Amino acid sequence: MMRARKNIVVLKFGGTSVGDVRKIGKVADRVIKTRNEGKDVVVVVSAMGDTTDRLIEIAGKVTCNPSRREMDMLMSTGEQLSSSILAMAVQERGYGCVSLTGSQAGILTDEFYSNARILNIRADRISKELKEDKIVVVAGFQGINAEGDITTLGRGGSDTTAVALAVALKADYCEIYTDVGGIYSTDPNLVRKAVKMHSLSYDETLELASSGARVLHTRAVEFAKKNNVVLHVRSSFNNDEGTWVMNERDIDMKMEKPVITGVTSDTDQVKISIFELEDKPGEAARLFGKFSDNNINIDLIVQNVSEKGLAAISFTIKPGDLSIAREVLKELEQEHAVIDTEVAKISIVGAGMQAHPGIAAGMFGILADRGINIEMISTSPIRISCIIRKSRVKDAVRALHSGFDIK
Amino acid sequence: MMRARKNIVVLKFGGTSVGDVRKIGKVADRVIKTRNEGKDVVVVVSAMGDTTDRLIEIAGKVTCNPSRREMDMLMSTGEQLSSSILAMAVQERGYGCVSLTGSQAGILTDEFYSNARILNIRADRISKELKEDKIVVVAGFQGINAEGDITTLGRGGSDTTAVALAVALKADYCEIYTDVGGIYSTDPNLVRKAVKMHSLSYDETLELASSGARVLHTRAVEFAKKNNVVLHVRSSFNNDEGTWVMNERDIDMKMEKPVITGVTSDTDQVKISIFELEDKPGEAARLFGKFSDNNINIDLIVQNVSEKGLAAISFTIKPGDLSIAREVLKELEQEHAVIDTEVAKISIVGAGMQAHPGIAAGMFGILADRGINIEMISTSPIRISCIIRKSRVKDAVRALHSGFDIK
Repeated sequence: MMRARKNIVVLKFGGTSVGDVRKIGKVADRVIKTRNEGKDVVVVVSAMGDTTDRLIEIAGKVTCNPSRREMDMLMSTGEQLSSSILAMAVQERGYGCVSLTGSQAGILTDEFYSNARILNIRADRISKELKEDKIVVVAGFQGINAEGDITTLGRGGSDTTAVALAVALKADYCEIYTDVGGIYSTDPNLVRKAVKMHSLSYDETLELASSGARVLHTRAVEFAKKNNVVLHVRSSFNNDEGTWVMNERDIDMKMEKPVITGVTSDTDQVKISIFELEDKPGEAARLFGKFSDNNINIDLIVQNVSEKGLAAISFTIKPGDLSIAREVLKELEQEHAVIDTEVAKISIVGAGMQAHPGIAAGMFGILADRGINIEMISTSPIRISCIIRKSRVKDAVRALHSGFDIK
Repeated sequence: MMRARKNIVVLKFGGTSVGDVRKIGKVADRVIKTRNEGKDVVVVVSAMGDTTDRLIEIAGKVTCNPSRREMDMLMSTGEQLSSSILAMAVQERGYGCVSLTGSQAGILTDEFYSNARILNIRADRISKELKEDKIVVVAGFQGINAEGDITTLGRGGSDTTAVALAVALKADYCEIYTDVGGIYSTDPNLVRKAVKMHSLSYDETLELASSGARVLHTRAVEFAKKNNVVLHVRSSFNNDEGTWVMNERDIDMKMEKPVITGVTSDTDQVKISIFELEDKPGEAARLFGKFSDNNINIDLIVQNVSEKGLAAISFTIKPGDLSIAREVLKELEQEHAVIDTEVAKISIVGAGMQAHPGIAAGMFGILADRGINIEMISTSPIRISCIIRKSRVKDAVRALHSGFDIK
């Protein structure tokens, strides 16, 4: 049955939203609801609940060092399974539906197994199914490389699949369903007054995502920004509007722009300090080059020069990289570096701060009033981050949230 | 690393052989052993242990009537999973190995989901991997149709995959690993003196398979016969030689050919008798046409004409088809047909019986001596089957096995 093409939307459901068969039924209902609102619907799903952990566990019993190609072959079965089950649930409710693997959906990636990037989407098959009036369910997180081998997209991969499909299909928008319901001004578990934001710019969302907010993965937001895809982050469990992420100029200008939109915290930080680095060109490059060669991501960096003419440098890394970092320090004959695992990062984010000088001073003042010591500072045009003691994180987040009067 | 092409063998491991991670390790060892004997090795695997049942269970929670396309999408994950895990186990032991889905292995089928037939194999990818000195693991039971959709091959599908790959790759032979160790003269659980046969012709194997022996699926044997692929049915748990299946003329002629090679029994039988069918042309065709339209397989058929000029006809079906069969009988106004579920089929099979008249008489005599009544008889050039009471099956099998002195 052929018919005129309607507006397309892409809906993405994460692992908790498809955690069990009952939840998949709810997802099917919601997909059909959107369809009945007159949209052509493409759905992207993650693997059901703990499938991914279970698959990793099976592989772990066979080898400590699985090849990435075979891991991708294995892991991709999780999303293939959930997509076929969701398709059955939609069909059971009387609607035409078809599930597609990443390969069938035409998602072509580069060759980097376990962390592949999408190069292109050949959407002919999806378009054909939509024209035949079907709801299309695509297995998230996966694609194929030029060899025809299955690749996976790494952390946040299903978000990236959804955004990439929205681009390829020229969708009206892309809805990301979560168990949280939107993007909040800070962690609602820490601050009861945390508010759900109505709309955010891509840049604010990126800063929030990279400062510890876990709702959206940076890569998906970058992809959306580059291609101007409107995102709607909302709850799988109710019909409330969530948070819209879009170009700053598209955000309703009648609303008074808040200066600070969010406060985030990240306790996954380790601070490393080296006190006697020769203060000459190339020393820092040699240091960080070595870290980069070992795939260690550096977050904040602060450097000072002491009176003796030696540089003191501090930087933060993720705890998971600590053991490799120790080896690198040894190689660099920097065994005396001080490693501090009791630190955390807090950040305030807001596109409005560009037009408001004094925000940094305000932040430092609020923290000082509470007796919270600032150990490192890093800024971007729309973000200020401070490293503080891990034990003071809750205090700091609450003080900043109420101090900047976020609502 | 390129090297000269060696002889290729295809090894197939069923669900019990890859039942858990420890068993997969054993399979990896065996695959490597074959490789170290100087062969290029292609392995076909079924899904691990109860994976298939578990997948069916999940689908059953979502719908009572899943579409076949989506079921194939779902079921095919089972073999994809086991093939990647086996590839990891082989790699862990220091050998190059790659797993391939049915699609990646180039297995092209017709469009009949859940029961597809292989149309063609494009073996370029497998050949390329073998040339690069890798062991290739192929997910059994699956292929793709012309649309690029995943299909599964129905019962015994992994055996068929293995034989089809052996044909496409011009393999020396195809080894089917089972938990039984070969094809026996009869069920070793019924008759302790059951003997493992050294070699069988395709026709004998086909007759045994369709008479209740469960070692190989008919379709795979037919495929092997048509393409003259030598099969070796052997144990996953030891190194003993199993049973070779090949063309009759290739079987070692020095060995005295036994007249009877096997005794089988099949208790999955229901007998239906219709006593008053008009004895005119087309009546039986109408009856069995209706059964065939409803996908009911008829096994044995016996027809007599009574003195009244009415035909009496008896036939057997599988118990699983009984409820549909009742409906068909109603449609045909044959509600008075007698349905008997307490019957069983016993068969003797042997290519030698063609040259030995009197085998049938011998069989009937042995059964008569035991007071076992024969209710229906059916023969092929190398098989004689009788329908008897289900309660007498063990007696009958033991009597025939010792009566024909099979060893």
